[in-house]
Amino acid sequence: MVTLKEIAEICNVSATTVSNVINGKAKTSEETKNKILKVIKETGYKPNVMAQGLRIKRTKTIAIIAEDIAQFTSPAIIESIMEKCEQHGYRVVVHNLRLYDRWADKWYKQYEDYHSVLDPVIRDVLSSQVDGVIYIAGHARVIKAFNDNFELPVVMCYAYSESPDVPSVVIDDEQSAYEMVTYLIENGHRRIGFVGGRSENIHTAQRLLGYQRAMYENGLLFDPKLVYYGDWSRESGYDGAKKLVPQGLTAIFGISDKMTGGIYDYLEENGITVGKDISVAGFDNETISAFFRPQLTTTELPLQEIGRASAVLLLDKLENAKGEKASSSEPYVEKIMCKMVIRQSVRKIKT
Amino acid sequence: MVTLKEIAEICNVSATTVSNVINGKAKTSEETKNKILKVIKETGYKPNVMAQGLRIKRTKTIAIIAEDIAQFTSPAIIESIMEKCEQHGYRVVVHNLRLYDRWADKWYKQYEDYHSVLDPVIRDVLSSQVDGVIYIAGHARVIKAFNDNFELPVVMCYAYSESPDVPSVVIDDEQSAYEMVTYLIENGHRRIGFVGGRSENIHTAQRLLGYQRAMYENGLLFDPKLVYYGDWSRESGYDGAKKLVPQGLTAIFGISDKMTGGIYDYLEENGITVGKDISVAGFDNETISAFFRPQLTTTELPLQEIGRASAVLLLDKLENAKGEKASSSEPYVEKIMCKMVIRQSVRKIKT
Repeated sequence: MVTLKEIAEICNVSATTVSNVINGKAKTSEETKNKILKVIKETGYKPNVMAQGLRIKRTKTIAIIAEDIAQFTSPAIIESIMEKCEQHGYRVVVHNLRLYDRWADKWYKQYEDYHSVLDPVIRDVLSSQVDGVIYIAGHARVIKAFNDNFELPVVMCYAYSESPDVPSVVIDDEQSAYEMVTYLIENGHRRIGFVGGRSENIHTAQRLLGYQRAMYENGLLFDPKLVYYGDWSRESGYDGAKKLVPQGLTAIFGISDKMTGGIYDYLEENGITVGKDISVAGFDNETISAFFRPQLTTTELPLQEIGRASAVLLLDKLENAKGEKASSSEPYVEKIMCKMVIRQSVRKIKT
Repeated sequence: MVTLKEIAEICNVSATTVSNVINGKAKTSEETKNKILKVIKETGYKPNVMAQGLRIKRTKTIAIIAEDIAQFTSPAIIESIMEKCEQHGYRVVVHNLRLYDRWADKWYKQYEDYHSVLDPVIRDVLSSQVDGVIYIAGHARVIKAFNDNFELPVVMCYAYSESPDVPSVVIDDEQSAYEMVTYLIENGHRRIGFVGGRSENIHTAQRLLGYQRAMYENGLLFDPKLVYYGDWSRESGYDGAKKLVPQGLTAIFGISDKMTGGIYDYLEENGITVGKDISVAGFDNETISAFFRPQLTTTELPLQEIGRASAVLLLDKLENAKGEKASSSEPYVEKIMCKMVIRQSVRKIKT
């Protein structure tokens, strides 16, 4: 059986150059590349598939790497990616890092723990003959694991990348929160509490910006004392309401439905009726929000749209611009709007 | 490069026999097998990995085939399988059939549609060098896709198999419903409505049996008019309550939390207070149930336990009994109990 080294000798190039051509790395001239591919074909050379990945042949398979499929956002994103890829004749395999399941929210800054889980999956993906990768984050942040020299096309989903070669698809947190707060203001509300997630979190920061812009554009003072930072849990929503409601609010905006469930808990315990004595808005449109009483007015995450857009970006890379490097030095970011879901928890009041 | 046919000639056996040995099928004598493996080693023969799977070498990778990862039961099952497998040094790859996403509940009896999705995934799994498969169903039924001659060890999770070689892990629907209805009876309830899922569904049939046994063991008449068959939707729960509540109940048992949400809708609309005027129990312990007002008393599905038990069965096949055939002619079934979660929707009444 002919070896990679022998191919290199026949072509009068280094073994590395042959390897680069086999692995689809774009560092070789078109002429050399064609010569090598011709010799490979003539000699019937078969690279070790498990070790190197037979990149000459597209497998029409895509790998999803999900930070955690049990995050409520993940299944819908995964399924819409799959649907779009299948429409284009691609199969999809899912790798699940299970980060939240392993470490709850304790892994965000644990570089080594994170890589101890991610790296074997990346090795697996690289050796398993997929054409490209979509990485699905559990929450928005800048993810640096895929740099300019990564061997496969990658799209970042629900988070930001650092590399111009890795485009990303995220939700428009700022504009979506802006619209909800504008809706509250249109309904006569002036003193609106804000129960955020962790303060260093991108979702929290962006949604707070949207809240502030809506206040500003309506000529309303921003009172920092009406902002509370929770940790996304129901309990922290309760604590937020306890801190903010006694300051005299007519409305309260919880930036996750789960935290808003805790706001409802506090209000019920204190005999304050939602949708009558106080208006409440949530964020996420999780299944739970339609079972709140009264049902919660909230903001629906465009999970299907995020998934589809990520798939379109990757398919485009695979089918239209193989091996091409990004022309901009900034990563491309596609922001997708959320949609308000108006139910019964917000009431119009006299201004 | 030596071919499979040449190996067969050297060993004086058929190509099929060589193939069987390579694929780990246990139809060849130990002597022949050793001879073939020796020749393979000596000649440096490498089977086409993509086409056949190099089964001689264990890859310590397991494939999960999930009917739909967006079913609320799937993520927790998948993660517990992964956790257990990782503890034993196995990696897990997830294949998602996306059956509910494609066809809602219209695929149950569509043999050809089902196989048009399943078969390519099975081909993929067989060619991708995994050691075994865990199939996760979206709801309980008998799944016939894996017969005695399937090339890899398989465990059926959340459904039943037909083959003695494919053990399965399911929840104990009958006993779990029995315990919930017994609890209602202990709280003084005698006329208890039953809102089931589809009547032909195994979960419905088993839970109804549990309801009937609890009634029987407490000397209570079973009134078939107090049974309503829904379709698992919130709307059908509403319809069930509308049909049953006017018949004079003190308690109503919805066998899914989602349907029970519809029962709450009906009761609220009619000014009947849950936990005071009527007692309500659900099933599943979905996230929503803790956000009902009052919070719902329900039955928690043992998703982690199901996942772990499935993984243990598969790991046992892989590590202790390679290639061994089942000794019984009946498939082994492991039934796992659910656990009652008592909240505020059931009230003790005078008998």
